[in-house]
Amino acid sequence: MKNKLSVAVLGATGSVGQKFVELLSSHPWFQISEVAASDRSVGKPYAEATNWNMASPLDSKIAKLTVKKCEPNLDSKIIFSGLDAKVAGEIESEFANSGYTVISNARNHRFDKNVPLVIPEVNPEHLALIHQQEWSGAIITNPNCSTIGLTLALKPIFDNFGIESLNVVTMQAISGGGYPGIPSMDILDNVVPFIGGEEVKLEMEPKKILGEIRENEIKYAEFKISAQCNRVPVLDGHLECVQLKLKNKVTPEEVKRVLREFKGLPQKLKLPTAPENPIIYFEEDNYPQPRIHRNLGRGMSVSIGRLRKDSLFDIKFVVLSHNTIRGAAGGTILIAELLKEQGFLGN
Amino acid sequence: MKNKLSVAVLGATGSVGQKFVELLSSHPWFQISEVAASDRSVGKPYAEATNWNMASPLDSKIAKLTVKKCEPNLDSKIIFSGLDAKVAGEIESEFANSGYTVISNARNHRFDKNVPLVIPEVNPEHLALIHQQEWSGAIITNPNCSTIGLTLALKPIFDNFGIESLNVVTMQAISGGGYPGIPSMDILDNVVPFIGGEEVKLEMEPKKILGEIRENEIKYAEFKISAQCNRVPVLDGHLECVQLKLKNKVTPEEVKRVLREFKGLPQKLKLPTAPENPIIYFEEDNYPQPRIHRNLGRGMSVSIGRLRKDSLFDIKFVVLSHNTIRGAAGGTILIAELLKEQGFLGN
Amino acid sequence: MKNKLSVAVLGATGSVGQKFVELLSSHPWFQISEVAASDRSVGKPYAEATNWNMASPLDSKIAKLTVKKCEPNLDSKIIFSGLDAKVAGEIESEFANSGYTVISNARNHRFDKNVPLVIPEVNPEHLALIHQQEWSGAIITNPNCSTIGLTLALKPIFDNFGIESLNVVTMQAISGGGYPGIPSMDILDNVVPFIGGEEVKLEMEPKKILGEIRENEIKYAEFKISAQCNRVPVLDGHLECVQLKLKNKVTPEEVKRVLREFKGLPQKLKLPTAPENPIIYFEEDNYPQPRIHRNLGRGMSVSIGRLRKDSLFDIKFVVLSHNTIRGAAGGTILIAELLKEQGFLGN
Amino acid sequence: MKNKLSVAVLGATGSVGQKFVELLSSHPWFQISEVAASDRSVGKPYAEATNWNMASPLDSKIAKLTVKKCEPNLDSKIIFSGLDAKVAGEIESEFANSGYTVISNARNHRFDKNVPLVIPEVNPEHLALIHQQEWSGAIITNPNCSTIGLTLALKPIFDNFGIESLNVVTMQAISGGGYPGIPSMDILDNVVPFIGGEEVKLEMEPKKILGEIRENEIKYAEFKISAQCNRVPVLDGHLECVQLKLKNKVTPEEVKRVLREFKGLPQKLKLPTAPENPIIYFEEDNYPQPRIHRNLGRGMSVSIGRLRKDSLFDIKFVVLSHNTIRGAAGGTILIAELLKEQGFLGN
Repeated sequence: MKNKLSVAVLGATGSVGQKFVELLSSHPWFQISEVAASDRSVGKPYAEATNWNMASPLDSKIAKLTVKKCEPNLDSKIIFSGLDAKVAGEIESEFANSGYTVISNARNHRFDKNVPLVIPEVNPEHLALIHQQEWSGAIITNPNCSTIGLTLALKPIFDNFGIESLNVVTMQAISGGGYPGIPSMDILDNVVPFIGGEEVKLEMEPKKILGEIRENEIKYAEFKISAQCNRVPVLDGHLECVQLKLKNKVTPEEVKRVLREFKGLPQKLKLPTAPENPIIYFEEDNYPQPRIHRNLGRGMSVSIGRLRKDSLFDIKFVVLSHNTIRGAAGGTILIAELLKEQGFLGN
Repeated sequence: MKNKLSVAVLGATGSVGQKFVELLSSHPWFQISEVAASDRSVGKPYAEATNWNMASPLDSKIAKLTVKKCEPNLDSKIIFSGLDAKVAGEIESEFANSGYTVISNARNHRFDKNVPLVIPEVNPEHLALIHQQEWSGAIITNPNCSTIGLTLALKPIFDNFGIESLNVVTMQAISGGGYPGIPSMDILDNVVPFIGGEEVKLEMEPKKILGEIRENEIKYAEFKISAQCNRVPVLDGHLECVQLKLKNKVTPEEVKRVLREFKGLPQKLKLPTAPENPIIYFEEDNYPQPRIHRNLGRGMSVSIGRLRKDSLFDIKFVVLSHNTIRGAAGGTILIAELLKEQGFLGN
Repeated sequence: MKNKLSVAVLGATGSVGQKFVELLSSHPWFQISEVAASDRSVGKPYAEATNWNMASPLDSKIAKLTVKKCEPNLDSKIIFSGLDAKVAGEIESEFANSGYTVISNARNHRFDKNVPLVIPEVNPEHLALIHQQEWSGAIITNPNCSTIGLTLALKPIFDNFGIESLNVVTMQAISGGGYPGIPSMDILDNVVPFIGGEEVKLEMEPKKILGEIRENEIKYAEFKISAQCNRVPVLDGHLECVQLKLKNKVTPEEVKRVLREFKGLPQKLKLPTAPENPIIYFEEDNYPQPRIHRNLGRGMSVSIGRLRKDSLFDIKFVVLSHNTIRGAAGGTILIAELLKEQGFLGN
Repeated sequence: MKNKLSVAVLGATGSVGQKFVELLSSHPWFQISEVAASDRSVGKPYAEATNWNMASPLDSKIAKLTVKKCEPNLDSKIIFSGLDAKVAGEIESEFANSGYTVISNARNHRFDKNVPLVIPEVNPEHLALIHQQEWSGAIITNPNCSTIGLTLALKPIFDNFGIESLNVVTMQAISGGGYPGIPSMDILDNVVPFIGGEEVKLEMEPKKILGEIRENEIKYAEFKISAQCNRVPVLDGHLECVQLKLKNKVTPEEVKRVLREFKGLPQKLKLPTAPENPIIYFEEDNYPQPRIHRNLGRGMSVSIGRLRKDSLFDIKFVVLSHNTIRGAAGGTILIAELLKEQGFLGN
């Protein structure tokens, strides 16, 4: 325990915050020393302040931590932010200004000029932008849950064959909306063909993530994206129907091969949260499926299937990822591991 | 009752068959005089032979009908076929050969040269093909459930602005697979990104339906279609995300206008099953939704929403239709009404 | 329209309030002239103030009504209250004090000494208590949604054979909690074996409803009740497993007979909302089921099945009722119809 | 690997069979050397013969095993039977006659005079009956899925306070019906208040399991049981509402104490599949819940909550157990471990 790095979780009582607590409670490198949340919770033991609804029982030590304010006087210098977007922007800036390293799941700083928007397997080199940030600390952001699985799937295709345009239709899990999220009366025996703000994120984020650093700036990848987002009655796991026009015309088999062979830096570094296979390709006609495959690689692997020729684009396929693990808390923790391994968290 | 036309239902114990029975039991023009099904059911009272699972109670007169064989010695000359595709092809041919008029929901004869594939609001003029059929009777087919709502939505756009290409991703209800259909263990908290044979149907049928009769033949509409089909945990109502490249560039508002104003021949003829509005357009961001809108127009209206510009195609929107009413039994009954009104069922 | 009675709905934007609006929008006797709700909605057109989520479209006239305050200066003298229990107690008293006749779905006044708790088929004679109320107006209450179906089922058994004790385990629909009610993340693929306050209501209300008026007071029925309440992922329809110890030992067939033959005063008076059969008994092993039977009698019939001997009590059976129609708004409207027919609403 | 005991699975392609394969694929004592199934599957590789739908991927070695006939010429002498009740009776007898030790999840032999019906924590001493079996081999049975969780909960209460009568209403998961089980169209947005044969099992099995061996015979426990069984739209986890009349009147707190303190022989022997805590008691009002608690103790712990006084019986509470792990394959494997530890499987 001694050598673990102390970390704090902001927004610890919310849905993403709880997932941080669950995933970090037995982490080999990090140890949650502080939890912070809104005024309503401050001063209470975490167990009492939170309406714990994770599958695993709440860690007994974390349960007893007293909830602190989300103010930059915490002892831990490494901050996981699960704050709601309504307040995340300002609070995270305050922490960064005060020397803290903030790894955030909120959308607010994702498009700040020098803030990396990172999927560790995809664009680890973007972390170099941190050196240009004007804060004494730093902010690093995790993409939106529907972006991450998709962009991970795009990476080997983008690198090997080039992408001209991308069309995506999502079927997203209810946990993507946080807790309490969508009322049961709105989603049982139903699909809602709209998720506020989601399509815009999905049409922008992949371009930054797949961008290239030139002259200390990210040059966004240049391809068009069209996204349509739907909410479906599934607990966890975002499924996305993807169509791609490629720069280099290749067979589906060639695309499958680069997907199957893909490994990223986290795999090379053997980061604790990195799945052995970031991408798992299925040949079965009816795979991947959210309930069956969302937990592969402890929720960190992305599952792909049905890759075939498309008459309007070049190829089409289905991609699945666990939205609260790979797509939120797990992805953020993997960023923190990468930061540590690359010396951004001190020695 | 005297003046009603006697009709028979083939495959009466199955899912589509039951829906025929439910919808026809109080029909103003047609009266079910005979029900026929597979050998397992022959000779039993219908109520006993069928595992009735419609929402309305089984009509007491039909309940007592003795199930007959699916052989062309029935008294009724008008046949509604809810037969399974495994046997429909041959049986329907036998009936047509023996002088019966078969209106079928099965896929087998849909692409026969002289067999009309009809949505009454879209291509009533295709019924003229019947005169060229070589059977002494006739076969008229109803399209696939995922085709009907979509093609009805396409019709006013196709006529007014022309279509260059069509991309569609469906989220289809479990009742689309008939009974028993997909096991609950496979779909609860899940999505299955595959429906056997569905994508092919959806990529072919709209072209025949929107085709033009020239020199006594249907010239298929010429535009490319790409379809991806998913099964979602929704009871009834297929929701489809549609993207269109148009021949004439127009604003979303112009497209909405032609959708809203659309009426077809069934509306003009005031056919009993025709909804007042074949298309209902919603301005709400998050509409249409299967559970809320599937029963509009007693399940015969198609709901559309979210029509907006698309960066890859020209426009995109969401369309919903009730798959077992408009998309199956109801659609077939509307064809029968049109046939009668146009003199194809004798006087 | 001229001769319809003007009525107002309190709490009109909530779940019960919307159901009142839906059911009353085409009522032959009553016409909604005013809608009232909390300050947040006051002054807005009803269509804008409410997040309409009923299955039928909002009536266009009611849509335009301006939402008023819940204060006793409304023009309509007949008030349907769908107020939340947090505020219903006081507001309803104010209205009654000011001469209004309040028919309420809230729990607050249900156990007031002179306030009738009414199921029109069960205890219409309790309306006589109104004469003893000290308000210039009146308050009449509708029981809890899980009480109504059960107590209607008990009525013919209680009258014919006497009840010594009652055991009930409920499986209640999510709509029973109002909107937004239970978050989808809490109930998808789940059962929650607890509904706050529900068991207490279910253990008390049937005794008052089945009580007898003696010397101008209700003498509560004397039998013990034990209730266990569960929330299940069903949209509408509360299903209850019931066990009864009877005073007179009779066969299951005799009990079924009195259930089947039961008719109440609303049936005799042919009240508009009264179902032809208040109780429908099914012989099928696996009936009644919420999705299949909840809408029988337009949601006002109670379905019963599986009545058989019990080794611990005398008989056991399953009862189903539509919780937002018979169990809430529909039940309240039926009370209003009874009030009118019996002269309580003036001439 | 060398020292592991070879075992065979009968009915290996079915739902229970697959669960055996999943749970045994990394078992420290047992190794699946043979899989057997119906003629349809015989001769095929297991991966091809089975429609694998477990959450974990199929073990690659077992995937390659050729499916054998369910005939007593297998090499492994220890047989796990996941056979369907239609064929299990005879086949299991044949194996027992031929010297095999059959541990069965099927109902057929459960009430044979000398066949133990075992929950290892509850009645391990019943295994002694094996010595009186007339087969050269042996048959040991696992109770029904709805019986196991309940009877485990009853054990400490029965031993400490005595039981006079038991009332139980179940809400059972869809996986309890095997695969394909209940069609999705029958259970989505629904509850089915009937499970064929289930109530009878639940009213008989606990009495044998809690029976006492006297003069080499099981004297059944003497208390009355009434059961009502419902199917709910939950994937895994049977929830049961239980009421008990006790011989010794005690407070709820005393009952909770014996539940919390309960440990059985498997815990003392530290059997590999035994959970550390066979019973977990929750104080939260709304616990246990199927989705949250079914996997506790890797699916082998039984969760209990809401224990309180009851007005008709003495106490009531809610019990949850994982029906395909503790209630089927996992429970059977625990029996096998107990058999081995007690010398019934040779040395």
